Amino acid sequence: MKDTAITEANPRPNHAPSKTGITKPTVGIDIGGTKINAAVVVPDSKPGEEQFQSLINAPTPTDSAVFMDTLVTMVDTLKQQHDVAAVGISTAGVVDSIHGRILGSTGNMPALKNLCNLKELLEARIHLPVHMENDANAAAYGEWRSGAAKGAENMFAITLGTGVGMGIVFNGQMYRGTHFYAAEGGHIAISYHRERKCTCGRWDCWEAFASGTGLQKTAAIALEAAPETAKAEFLQNYCTNNEVTTYAVIAAWKDNNHIGAKIIDQWHNHIAVGLGSLINVMDPDMIVVGGGLAQFVNFELLKERALERSMSNDFQLVPATLGNHAGIVGAAYLALETLS
Amino acid sequence: MKDTAITEANPRPNHAPSKTGITKPTVGIDIGGTKINAAVVVPDSKPGEEQFQSLINAPTPTDSAVFMDTLVTMVDTLKQQHDVAAVGISTAGVVDSIHGRILGSTGNMPALKNLCNLKELLEARIHLPVHMENDANAAAYGEWRSGAAKGAENMFAITLGTGVGMGIVFNGQMYRGTHFYAAEGGHIAISYHRERKCTCGRWDCWEAFASGTGLQKTAAIALEAAPETAKAEFLQNYCTNNEVTTYAVIAAWKDNNHIGAKIIDQWHNHIAVGLGSLINVMDPDMIVVGGGLAQFVNFELLKERALERSMSNDFQLVPATLGNHAGIVGAAYLALETLS
Repeated sequence: MKDTAITEANPRPNHAPSKTGITKPTVGIDIGGTKINAAVVVPDSKPGEEQFQSLINAPTPTDSAVFMDTLVTMVDTLKQQHDVAAVGISTAGVVDSIHGRILGSTGNMPALKNLCNLKELLEARIHLPVHMENDANAAAYGEWRSGAAKGAENMFAITLGTGVGMGIVFNGQMYRGTHFYAAEGGHIAISYHRERKCTCGRWDCWEAFASGTGLQKTAAIALEAAPETAKAEFLQNYCTNNEVTTYAVIAAWKDNNHIGAKIIDQWHNHIAVGLGSLINVMDPDMIVVGGGLAQFVNFELLKERALERSMSNDFQLVPATLGNHAGIVGAAYLALETLS
Repeated sequence: MKDTAITEANPRPNHAPSKTGITKPTVGIDIGGTKINAAVVVPDSKPGEEQFQSLINAPTPTDSAVFMDTLVTMVDTLKQQHDVAAVGISTAGVVDSIHGRILGSTGNMPALKNLCNLKELLEARIHLPVHMENDANAAAYGEWRSGAAKGAENMFAITLGTGVGMGIVFNGQMYRGTHFYAAEGGHIAISYHRERKCTCGRWDCWEAFASGTGLQKTAAIALEAAPETAKAEFLQNYCTNNEVTTYAVIAAWKDNNHIGAKIIDQWHNHIAVGLGSLINVMDPDMIVVGGGLAQFVNFELLKERALERSMSNDFQLVPATLGNHAGIVGAAYLALETLS
């Protein structure tokens, strides 16, 4: 547990007004498949100040009752240290953030299956207003509110990881669509040939190419097409038990291996095709790329390829700056701004 | 010239309040490559009433001075018959509708090349406020304001013609993006294979498959792959001078020709792939399909195919109802609503 103690030498920052004029510290909670992270977000920290304080975490319980108790304990812990105004929760799945209900699949989080009214249940126990948000939305809002896309008029953020997540902020507002199914950018199609099945069951989703899973598939195809000796060399040098993992590809690419470089080049192309489509629909001034694989993106090359696809040439393509904690920050700000 | 005379037997309708409370008749002008159409839109006509009155038209002049004179004459003609509050103009090209400037290519309209400040020039001569809008945006707004998508929360409209146009209305607002380059849905990519060049110069744009031009290309490929006798039969029965036009394909399809049916099936698939992507980004409650080719769309089949691609299954897919005059209606309403 990393804790930033509130002492006289380390006082609470002098909060600038938040967008709504409310400046109180707010708890942000990010519910992941294995771990729950929570911290206190201090609205509009000054440059150089921490975006959040008192980061704590706990393993994600699979039992609903234990899960509820864990959330309550985490909030109570943070309440003891901060004058908390509200709680924002970032979670996977389709979230009706207006009514605070979890609508869609919560994937690998069995505890949530019986907790579609989590907001209500939690509010009754912690006596604070709770705001629920889809994790990709919360991350995008965090990056827009106090990360890489601060000040953007229209922006979207994508996360490149096991899948491809997306969140959209238009004109300072989180865009969620009519039924909270918007910003499923990972599931736009980049081919009509029915060549790759996505984990969602649909054909040729962007995610099936641009994600880590997609990169592995691209690698498998590239190796299949490579000369036997080059393939054998690749498997021997970079793969354990002949498994072509994302990290094997990255290692080969960093080593200037010919096949590794070709795969990473194709991956950039796959990402650029989807980006171009999203730019042509939304005409953003800022695009943020985060997630575990963002560190392997050549932003200059990706922008060059995206420009070949886009009508507008006036956008910034930048790495996320809030890292794994964009969801915490975004959920907290959304909770605070819902109070007004 | 079709003119609905204002007489005692045919009085001006008792206008219901517009969205902004302003109910005055407004001129809508649609500038096309060959023809300028103009009419007076009567805000919030009652069911059964005409959406617009006094439709007039003129050939589109190529000379800028003649073009300006033509617009002024058309507005003057309509002003003599109606108490006009404002003028809305729908035109091809990228339009900065906030400042009323034409930013991008105006394609086949040479007169507009020297008239990027058309709004200013026209206002000085007609002494009425002028609103400028991109034609696909205006058409979408018209369909949302008083056509097929009336009452939708989030909608987009596409037009299937020589190209593929698009306009977006989010939460009752025309969505134009940061630099007026949004809603270029015709230029999202539906393949990453670099298989078809779009007229815009980019690869594999939706338009290169879903438009009339795209349909012809699909037909050419299908015929190339067909057995010689079937191909010869197709060319002989449906094509003049062996030219595979859109109308040849439609004729073959209506005639239950095997190749014609296959091409139209593929065309539906191409449209559905792009629609699915747009749905997954925007989660609309309503999608309107217009343009010259919309009459050949099997809406039931298209929705079925789009559902295979979309995360949300809760949207209506409907034909446009304002036909060629959606731009006039949309531009007029936008002009009126800008007055407030």
